[in-house]
Amino acid sequence: MKVKVSRKAHFNAAHRLYRKDWSDDKNNAVFGKCNNPNFHGHNYELIVSVFGEIDSETGFVVDMKVLKDLIKEKVEDALDHKNLNVEVPEFKELNPTAENISVVIWNKLRTHIDANHELEVKLYETPRNFVTYWG
Amino acid sequence: MKVKVSRKAHFNAAHRLYRKDWSDDKNNAVFGKCNNPNFHGHNYELIVSVFGEIDSETGFVVDMKVLKDLIKEKVEDALDHKNLNVEVPEFKELNPTAENISVVIWNKLRTHIDANHELEVKLYETPRNFVTYWG
Amino acid sequence: MKVKVSRKAHFNAAHRLYRKDWSDDKNNAVFGKCNNPNFHGHNYELIVSVFGEIDSETGFVVDMKVLKDLIKEKVEDALDHKNLNVEVPEFKELNPTAENISVVIWNKLRTHIDANHELEVKLYETPRNFVTYWG
Amino acid sequence: MKVKVSRKAHFNAAHRLYRKDWSDDKNNAVFGKCNNPNFHGHNYELIVSVFGEIDSETGFVVDMKVLKDLIKEKVEDALDHKNLNVEVPEFKELNPTAENISVVIWNKLRTHIDANHELEVKLYETPRNFVTYWG
Amino acid sequence: MKVKVSRKAHFNAAHRLYRKDWSDDKNNAVFGKCNNPNFHGHNYELIVSVFGEIDSETGFVVDMKVLKDLIKEKVEDALDHKNLNVEVPEFKELNPTAENISVVIWNKLRTHIDANHELEVKLYETPRNFVTYWG
Amino acid sequence: MKVKVSRKAHFNAAHRLYRKDWSDDKNNAVFGKCNNPNFHGHNYELIVSVFGEIDSETGFVVDMKVLKDLIKEKVEDALDHKNLNVEVPEFKELNPTAENISVVIWNKLRTHIDANHELEVKLYETPRNFVTYWG
Repeated sequence: MKVKVSRKAHFNAAHRLYRKDWSDDKNNAVFGKCNNPNFHGHNYELIVSVFGEIDSETGFVVDMKVLKDLIKEKVEDALDHKNLNVEVPEFKELNPTAENISVVIWNKLRTHIDANHELEVKLYETPRNFVTYWG
Repeated sequence: MKVKVSRKAHFNAAHRLYRKDWSDDKNNAVFGKCNNPNFHGHNYELIVSVFGEIDSETGFVVDMKVLKDLIKEKVEDALDHKNLNVEVPEFKELNPTAENISVVIWNKLRTHIDANHELEVKLYETPRNFVTYWG
Repeated sequence: MKVKVSRKAHFNAAHRLYRKDWSDDKNNAVFGKCNNPNFHGHNYELIVSVFGEIDSETGFVVDMKVLKDLIKEKVEDALDHKNLNVEVPEFKELNPTAENISVVIWNKLRTHIDANHELEVKLYETPRNFVTYWG
Repeated sequence: MKVKVSRKAHFNAAHRLYRKDWSDDKNNAVFGKCNNPNFHGHNYELIVSVFGEIDSETGFVVDMKVLKDLIKEKVEDALDHKNLNVEVPEFKELNPTAENISVVIWNKLRTHIDANHELEVKLYETPRNFVTYWG
Repeated sequence: MKVKVSRKAHFNAAHRLYRKDWSDDKNNAVFGKCNNPNFHGHNYELIVSVFGEIDSETGFVVDMKVLKDLIKEKVEDALDHKNLNVEVPEFKELNPTAENISVVIWNKLRTHIDANHELEVKLYETPRNFVTYWG
Repeated sequence: MKVKVSRKAHFNAAHRLYRKDWSDDKNNAVFGKCNNPNFHGHNYELIVSVFGEIDSETGFVVDMKVLKDLIKEKVEDALDHKNLNVEVPEFKELNPTAENISVVIWNKLRTHIDANHELEVKLYETPRNFVTYWG
């Protein structure tokens, strides 16, 4: 019996969408006001899901407390109240779109999740825009 | 790296569930108070999702601004503040259930979405009733 | 010790904003697409609040079950799946704006609430537009 | 044209996570404060989804009213305002984790759903912890 | 310039509504299934609001971090994952209705809030039932 | 008959909490990680409420379309996708706490609202932290 268990978390961050190797004009044409050089920001709401067999001993797929602490350590501590472009190494050469942030979060968590379990990351950039990545 | 990107939108509309070729008794038996001949209505909340490769140049699957404007033009302008049975051609001969509305919206959008991308439509008729269609 | 207790309810309805004694042009100028003669509709979310002393015997201001049943009988049965303009007597000569609907609901409930209690009605026409009336 | 239709429901219950065949120390180590012998409780929010062909006559996959009544009879009446460990037979020998509750609910509903339809159960134990089971 | 600042928190607990000095019949008549002797439970969502002057130095009415920690220490640690009737001294002789719980929480916090500030407690017993107490 | 009408809006912005006239140590002690010199950010959800008599002609306190456009012009265009400290003149010498932002928004709107109407601004900095200012 395989179940998907999901845990909600959140972090706040500043970011700017742009490519260093593009002209200002091209950055503005493609990224519009998201290219503000002084940055803007979001409350990112994050749902991390793990899919696997229910352990017949505990009744858990994963211990939610362990999953919560893992998200805290690997994601929230790395991204919360940060400027993604300036302070987070993964975005030094990578545009911090919601798509790319979800892939970065998935990579941060994957090695810490049981190899028999599938991992999915859902990231709300705003209540109206969100992305889902499952590796 | 394939990601699903989702955009929330909304529209308000009136509708009535019934079939012209059924008797009043049968319409009432099957559709109950949703068959009110004077119509009732809903705030439809809509989530449109597009699934595809992240463009390595932009970091986008699709530009959310483009997706937002497409939903506005093809769905909101066609359905918002309308009587679905009376004013929307697709429902002249089709019962405007949540299921059928989601298929109509999917068809309205499909030709305007990159053929390499999958499309999903999630439609909340109320906060308690919703449907999902992915073609 | 006075406490405000609140109960959430909901109903769906069709309506149209207009005045019979105005020209079509004036109705369109003031009410825009809300003046669609074929009607549109909403999921109305309703919060009814009663403010009063905690009964020291029960620990209740009002019994929530009683309040829930009262809202069902006086509001939901009267308005749910109805066309407000056509089928609800209070709106025969009254424009069914959110403001006026909230006053009508307050009047429907007031006589059934203990005279020592204050009554407040909060009505969401959409998740983005709502009104509050406390008599 | 296959569509997934979803209906939201809810119930409140008390529970305790533990195994009779484990020592108190082991129960505490694994289940922490969820092992409180005096119980704690939750508002469980439930989303039941049915996936199948749209009936071309009605425009429904399933009649939402029928689905709502089925959830009321089979799930809410069995679990609402109950102590899951003490009063619900399925949990006499089964730890009432969110994972196991979702499987129990799925089993309660499966035989009453058309065999051509797939069934999915999503259960929020809190707004931050939830599980999904699709058989 | 007076502003109301609000902080959201939560706890899960079991409870039972009844009075020891009433007969079983009377308890059942008044409290219905909330009188289950085996208890049921809720996810209580709590909003604590403090009303006062903005400090012209900091721009804060209160430091949200301080308020968050205070709610954690005085409310969450005292009530989370507890059986309110059995384990929380304030409810030894007091029926744990939402009304009474909100007053108990207000009293727990009041002495720790600046005397120049007003305090309000809003407590959701379920997403549909909630109470507000401001002393 | 006085009614409070409310309209929801939103904007995203970057900010930093600090005072130029304080030492780094003092800024860190008081504002913690909100003092990140590279900025962080939020999705600000805004509810603007206007309280006044229902106009007996229209049934409106204010035309929601007019209120929506006013918020767009005076608040969203001024703050959305901006760095509050760097780009918004009101915060050149004022710490952009949620409290101060709500006062700035109130001031931006007050002169454009009918003098007979009261104005209230509710600002969510996160879904867990919010402030309310009514002048």
